Amino acid sequence: MLTAFTPARDFSSVQNSSRFACPAPPRPAEDIQKTLTGAGQLLYYMSLIVVGSMAYDAIETPFGKTNRIVGGAATYVAYAASNFVNPVKQISIVGYDFEKEEMDALVKRGVVLDGVEIVRDKKSFFWSGRYHLDMNTRDTLVTDLNVLVDFKPVVPESYQESEFLMLGNVNPQIQIDVIRQMKKRPKLIAMDTMNFWMETAMGDLEKLLKMVDVLMINDSEARQLSGQFSLVKAAREIMKMGPSYLVIKKGEHGALLFHGNQVFFAPALPLEEVFDPTGAGDTFAGGFMGHIAKTRDVSFENMKTAIIVGSAMASFCVEKFGPERLKEISKADIDERLGQFVELVNFDINLV
Amino acid sequence: MLTAFTPARDFSSVQNSSRFACPAPPRPAEDIQKTLTGAGQLLYYMSLIVVGSMAYDAIETPFGKTNRIVGGAATYVAYAASNFVNPVKQISIVGYDFEKEEMDALVKRGVVLDGVEIVRDKKSFFWSGRYHLDMNTRDTLVTDLNVLVDFKPVVPESYQESEFLMLGNVNPQIQIDVIRQMKKRPKLIAMDTMNFWMETAMGDLEKLLKMVDVLMINDSEARQLSGQFSLVKAAREIMKMGPSYLVIKKGEHGALLFHGNQVFFAPALPLEEVFDPTGAGDTFAGGFMGHIAKTRDVSFENMKTAIIVGSAMASFCVEKFGPERLKEISKADIDERLGQFVELVNFDINLV
Repeated sequence: MLTAFTPARDFSSVQNSSRFACPAPPRPAEDIQKTLTGAGQLLYYMSLIVVGSMAYDAIETPFGKTNRIVGGAATYVAYAASNFVNPVKQISIVGYDFEKEEMDALVKRGVVLDGVEIVRDKKSFFWSGRYHLDMNTRDTLVTDLNVLVDFKPVVPESYQESEFLMLGNVNPQIQIDVIRQMKKRPKLIAMDTMNFWMETAMGDLEKLLKMVDVLMINDSEARQLSGQFSLVKAAREIMKMGPSYLVIKKGEHGALLFHGNQVFFAPALPLEEVFDPTGAGDTFAGGFMGHIAKTRDVSFENMKTAIIVGSAMASFCVEKFGPERLKEISKADIDERLGQFVELVNFDINLV
Repeated sequence: MLTAFTPARDFSSVQNSSRFACPAPPRPAEDIQKTLTGAGQLLYYMSLIVVGSMAYDAIETPFGKTNRIVGGAATYVAYAASNFVNPVKQISIVGYDFEKEEMDALVKRGVVLDGVEIVRDKKSFFWSGRYHLDMNTRDTLVTDLNVLVDFKPVVPESYQESEFLMLGNVNPQIQIDVIRQMKKRPKLIAMDTMNFWMETAMGDLEKLLKMVDVLMINDSEARQLSGQFSLVKAAREIMKMGPSYLVIKKGEHGALLFHGNQVFFAPALPLEEVFDPTGAGDTFAGGFMGHIAKTRDVSFENMKTAIIVGSAMASFCVEKFGPERLKEISKADIDERLGQFVELVNFDINLV
């Protein structure tokens, strides 16, 4: 439900236009679904392709330990995005050990797995890590790439025409390859990456950055990529490399969205405990792209809302191990959480 | 100028009520001044008493060095607050070396110095420090207490009846003493403190915390005071100690305002450079209390606005050495900056 609501601009007061549900996104997804069921064609456009790992993790935090829990960037993105858009079209690779019930859980949420290769004689990617007391740093204990070594994604014919593409953190060469397989360039391409690729595949990364619209990285990665300590300067340098939108994730300190000379900030929800931060960044990306794909609105204004949605989804993710909490939550839970974000940053102001 | 503007609540959408200047504070300071000039009595109520050091600093940052610049908590508070409320009534102590032109500059801004003791045979408090590259840490090079050793503030008769009291970071015993000298308890008492007093004067600090309304400290101090790492848990513990409002300052990561179960977040403005962070916390406090004293509204809603105003003032402070930038800015500059904060956190949202 949308309420159109545009108060007259009064130049005697400074406007904080965070407000009741306005302006309406140009073509809300629900309407399109309602009016075009049958033709069905638009479902292709609205759908989101997600590329990335599907894995198992063993995680140790100050609050506890889990020996084997489903994980991987594409898994978190899919769990978050599927609250907003259907279908989510997964491109990944798993081994013989990837449990059917995990696949089924995704399918039940409207995730299409045609692009997920199952390797019969290898195990799934496995990662194990231990978080420090402050939860901001972690030690990687085990990285068994397993099937990930062979990841050469093929974009299924049924995925073509999708308007939204989220490239999770994998080798930039793979990310480029997926973009090149798209017969029609998606309306919005977003990508994640990490310091490792800046150090080992900078040539490919530079090529890739010219092909995408949105780059999502954390603050230390932004500093490394740009050679600038100031995030404002870093953002300017990075946008020169290609992406016209840059999201800098600062974990418990929120996230910044840059576009041209504009900047927007979404806080992280102050939580009693961060139980397990694994996957929070990917969940953020899933909420972000889910909202964009749902609304089909790629304006800066709508991206502001998208990073609030991403932050809200991430705030659920960290409440339990792995994607456990993401599997539980309802749309009502998400609405309530979004309301908390509104309360968190809502203020009135007058001129001095 | 205020515009009353209350959109109907639509439960189908999540409300972000950050909006055009509403609701109007109950009694805007300008109106009171206009209608009651002559009687003048209300000027006493509206006035803000500031207690704290006035000093000289020598500061070294990665961007440069200054050998002697005016500083001290009360100086920064006064420079920030005097943009919003007049008079600001200073309580401090200086030595023979405190320059007349610095005093005159404050008086010109409506700062009353009746409560500032001038010691003829001692020098003013002097502090010298060097900031590290990240600007979040600094080494103290020199701390010459000088006159500060003798600081036994006397609240002048002309300061009585003031409704707002800001206790800068000094010995809690001095802060208690000032409160006790007030014949009528101010409408709002805010205080700053630091880890040093938690370690050396915890008894007095505990007594003091029961006497104040607002405590403003940074995140590491909040953790130390509460023994809790989670800031949400820390806030709950600290509010049990007395203050019903708690502001946790996180520097470049913004500030949190807690009250009961409510929480509000104000970001720091993303700046190209933080030139010199000295005094940013005190400037924040000055903007906060200046806004509260101007509006005479001590509600949680109005405190949200106050911490945005504080954050805006702090964003100016760090742009030049010491209070240099604060001396330059106009009301138009402040309005423009407040507008940037609105843009920074403004978003629209719908239910899932």
